[in-house]
Amino acid sequence: MRETQIVDRIRRLAAAPRGNRRIVQAIGDDCAILRPDPKEDFLFTSDFALEGRHFTLDTHTAADVGHKALARSLSDLAAMGAEPVFCLVSLAVPAQLAGGWVQRFYRGLLRLAARYGISLAGGDLASFEKVIVDVMCCGRTGRGKAILRSGAKPGDRIYTTGELGGSVHGLNTRQGRGWRRHLRPEPRIEAGIALRRLGISACMDISDGLALDLHRMCLESKVGAVIDSDLPVAPGASLEEALHGGEDYELLFTASPRIELPGKIGRLPISSIGLITTGHPGRILFQGRPLKPKGFEHFS
Amino acid sequence: MRETQIVDRIRRLAAAPRGNRRIVQAIGDDCAILRPDPKEDFLFTSDFALEGRHFTLDTHTAADVGHKALARSLSDLAAMGAEPVFCLVSLAVPAQLAGGWVQRFYRGLLRLAARYGISLAGGDLASFEKVIVDVMCCGRTGRGKAILRSGAKPGDRIYTTGELGGSVHGLNTRQGRGWRRHLRPEPRIEAGIALRRLGISACMDISDGLALDLHRMCLESKVGAVIDSDLPVAPGASLEEALHGGEDYELLFTASPRIELPGKIGRLPISSIGLITTGHPGRILFQGRPLKPKGFEHFS
Repeated sequence: MRETQIVDRIRRLAAAPRGNRRIVQAIGDDCAILRPDPKEDFLFTSDFALEGRHFTLDTHTAADVGHKALARSLSDLAAMGAEPVFCLVSLAVPAQLAGGWVQRFYRGLLRLAARYGISLAGGDLASFEKVIVDVMCCGRTGRGKAILRSGAKPGDRIYTTGELGGSVHGLNTRQGRGWRRHLRPEPRIEAGIALRRLGISACMDISDGLALDLHRMCLESKVGAVIDSDLPVAPGASLEEALHGGEDYELLFTASPRIELPGKIGRLPISSIGLITTGHPGRILFQGRPLKPKGFEHFS
Repeated sequence: MRETQIVDRIRRLAAAPRGNRRIVQAIGDDCAILRPDPKEDFLFTSDFALEGRHFTLDTHTAADVGHKALARSLSDLAAMGAEPVFCLVSLAVPAQLAGGWVQRFYRGLLRLAARYGISLAGGDLASFEKVIVDVMCCGRTGRGKAILRSGAKPGDRIYTTGELGGSVHGLNTRQGRGWRRHLRPEPRIEAGIALRRLGISACMDISDGLALDLHRMCLESKVGAVIDSDLPVAPGASLEEALHGGEDYELLFTASPRIELPGKIGRLPISSIGLITTGHPGRILFQGRPLKPKGFEHFS
């Protein structure tokens, strides 16, 4: 199967979901073209999904890989409260996967894309000995409205959506809700948009574990934190998994105590877990002791 | 070396070149933020540079890899006549390269970035057994002004910039100008912008060889072509290398005969090589015979 045939197939698959008025040129040329609106800001993120790191071909179907690769990048848009606009997908696969596997990969990716109204506007395709995916997502917010990591202030409460530790627990047990969650993580797009409208002060997604990601948020905001409430530990998961397990893709955020937060957004519970302090930047107290910022680290 | 330390280093390196007013949030958060102008269109492209495919660690220094990875993506902006705005760089490397190699990679990339005024606004960093790079570039043109592949019309003349076959000839001989060109290809940004202003009808970059890329342009434009003039073959290269060699990153474009083109743009020569015809879409005649659209194909 030749490259142009594969690209033609992807183009036909990608044409299926509803178009996006902002994208005036998608797959088929050297670049995709975005025609912006002056009242908006556009947000950009890119995330790898690498065979042997983020998935394996034994455990993940082609559609799982497509879903997960897009979900990882969408989760970054969710973290800033953005509405998805378009994505570019760079995919490298061994030559023997160039036919059916690639098509099923795009089906899985485009099914998730359709749910969040994000268009596939281009990317790259190459052959390589392992499966490599890099997904760039573009989202939008009103001008100046994106939620940054750096906005947490002493006195703000700390919250998370959903449950923690489920994905790593699923990875360890290969069964149940946690395993399904690991295979097909859910980006918290609706929650991110709702939280932006509520005026929260800082937000990020939990991809490398609560302890490490809260540490990063505190560094960016130049604040400390204390975890003073029970964590929403996923069923079956340990406290260790909830603190340090990666790939939950829940939202970690802070809000002024003046803001009244609902207990749930849609069906997604919100848990208050702690307090931002004037402590040493990046330092987190948990059960009276400093919490080590360990979690999923690529270079450790 | 920890991930946050590496990212901090990159952030310091990236802060060096002049800022970009359109990018209101760069490295350090979940997404980069672009604040657009309503009179502009924004263009997006992403391109892999993969170890063993596009470079090897024996032949390319870290700075060469950084240069080449960005150049490949910038070349797509050049092909549409866009001015560079920002890029996202996704980089995966073996853990033992996490220190000096990564820093030299970014130095090489940022040196090229500074020349074309493109900001590094974010990306991803991971560990992997091979070096994997995916660079997303964003550029801009006036509204509706990007040059597409699909605009070639029967009667238009076909042109290329520079010389053809030099990069693959350099790869085969490992010496001379061609080899330097292979290691550090030059994106034709200034030429793309100048050609857009002259009102050419179609353009793309030659990354997989003239024959294959002209075939692709003809398919998109639903036209045929005849190569009726001498090709600008690079010194030492064969006609075969000029027709089918990849990675020259010159511009292939078409223009109405009413448009007067200069012989050079800056110091870069322009050669008239053929004519767009009403022939079968994608069919190219060369020396009286159909030219096979062979060139660099990932899946062949």
